[in-house]
Amino acid sequence: MEDGFSIKEATIGIIGLGLMGGSLAMSLKGKCACIIGFDAQLPTLELALSKGIIDHAGSLSSADRAAAQTVSYRGKQMDILILATPVPAILSILQQLPSFISQPCIVMDIGSAKRDILQAMDSLPEYFDPIGGHPICGKENLGIENADKDLYQKAPFILTPLDRTTRRARSAVRKMISTIGASCIEMTAGEHDKVFAATSHLPFLISSALAHSTPKEFSPFIGPGFRSTSRLAGTPSLMMMGILKSNRDNVLRAIQAFRNSLNDMESALEHENFNELEYLLDQSRSSYQTMVNT
Amino acid sequence: MEDGFSIKEATIGIIGLGLMGGSLAMSLKGKCACIIGFDAQLPTLELALSKGIIDHAGSLSSADRAAAQTVSYRGKQMDILILATPVPAILSILQQLPSFISQPCIVMDIGSAKRDILQAMDSLPEYFDPIGGHPICGKENLGIENADKDLYQKAPFILTPLDRTTRRARSAVRKMISTIGASCIEMTAGEHDKVFAATSHLPFLISSALAHSTPKEFSPFIGPGFRSTSRLAGTPSLMMMGILKSNRDNVLRAIQAFRNSLNDMESALEHENFNELEYLLDQSRSSYQTMVNT
Repeated sequence: MEDGFSIKEATIGIIGLGLMGGSLAMSLKGKCACIIGFDAQLPTLELALSKGIIDHAGSLSSADRAAAQTVSYRGKQMDILILATPVPAILSILQQLPSFISQPCIVMDIGSAKRDILQAMDSLPEYFDPIGGHPICGKENLGIENADKDLYQKAPFILTPLDRTTRRARSAVRKMISTIGASCIEMTAGEHDKVFAATSHLPFLISSALAHSTPKEFSPFIGPGFRSTSRLAGTPSLMMMGILKSNRDNVLRAIQAFRNSLNDMESALEHENFNELEYLLDQSRSSYQTMVNT
Repeated sequence: MEDGFSIKEATIGIIGLGLMGGSLAMSLKGKCACIIGFDAQLPTLELALSKGIIDHAGSLSSADRAAAQTVSYRGKQMDILILATPVPAILSILQQLPSFISQPCIVMDIGSAKRDILQAMDSLPEYFDPIGGHPICGKENLGIENADKDLYQKAPFILTPLDRTTRRARSAVRKMISTIGASCIEMTAGEHDKVFAATSHLPFLISSALAHSTPKEFSPFIGPGFRSTSRLAGTPSLMMMGILKSNRDNVLRAIQAFRNSLNDMESALEHENFNELEYLLDQSRSSYQTMVNT
């Protein structure tokens, strides 16, 4: 390897073995030297070990120092550490990281809002080599029990480097991303957060407001359309609160843009301006086809 | 059969061989005596004939009388006639029906808004025995080329009888619906339209407004969440305009209820009232799980 980094020889740590972290471990399994998994839930760790999803287990729950000792006991230094927890936990782990890792390490998170996380990464001691990441894939059913080794296949994987991110770290995570079958797109944290307010955080709020406003007694009449439009409302708020807090300004702007479109349609329907309504719906369909079908 | 109606011995006519009508023909094939298909598009009729989806073809395009002659030439009287076109075409066909059918016939539509259609059905001459229907199934890709003999399997199938609907017609369509594997729910047209404004017509508008308000250049970053929430925006406006016109009052009320929920979430986010936001999102998730997962 031109830069001396080989995924095959790398020890990769993953903190948070839920759907995303668990799937990442499964997709890396056998393609790197060693996977060390961390999770605050002991049953999750035990499941990951017993299924062979990870090679070694650490714990961050009660004693961070103990986790560090576990890692050093195995005599493994982590080359890449992935933070795969919800956003608030990523922010808190970044604060604690220097207290249990004292050796050089590339650190990448896979959180869905990037500005706050990159700011926290920028405060890490110099021996850390941090970079932001965000894979565009997922499922509504979370947890390691739904992890899937093919989850990352063909998914876009955003990278948001910091000014301090080294060429080596960039190259290493690009190799890892290519190993799991995803494809890299590099952008700034600011661009990322603006885009995902519209394509991800807003759809979650819309789905939630739909589920919220629909009388429960209409349940027997729900078909595939409602099911699809409301699907994201099933996402636990725990996963989304940190994202919404962190990306509040962009999300508020996206809500406003959405409401303008809905208001235009409502106004056309209210005033029986059916030509205008049809025109707006045709524009929407064309936009959908351009964005989603291509 | 207690009321003398046997699906096995019935001749069933289907006007409109798109996704819904085509799938209905496929699921009835071999289970009734004869299927006569009508469609304004000659290539659709030819495809349906050549694939054996229908037994005989009629045309309603240029000369209704000729279609009637085609039917009578075959010496087949239709026992049940299904109207499976978009809502505006159903309304127009109901007006023309007496000019090309002069023998007793059960008529059922499968349109997604019922009050206007039932009003038009009520004006049919007495020898027609009309009833409203609405199967809760579908796909985003329309047309006979996407028809599927299993589309109706396990789907709820709403029946909205008129005062004049006979027990024989009710029983006949119930037998037909059971034959295709769907399950009947009977309700009034008014109840139907109120429910489906919320569970179907509103989700379409929400998906459309989402697609409308999202900048097209965000397209590379679209993941499964946006795909799911915006899916209904791909529905042709031709399919929806008649429904929205016909169910305008209920749809406007459903938009208002949805916007109230979205406004509450927006206000909580704007004022950094995160406990309130989390509470609303938890309510939404619980509502989603009650309605969709059960």
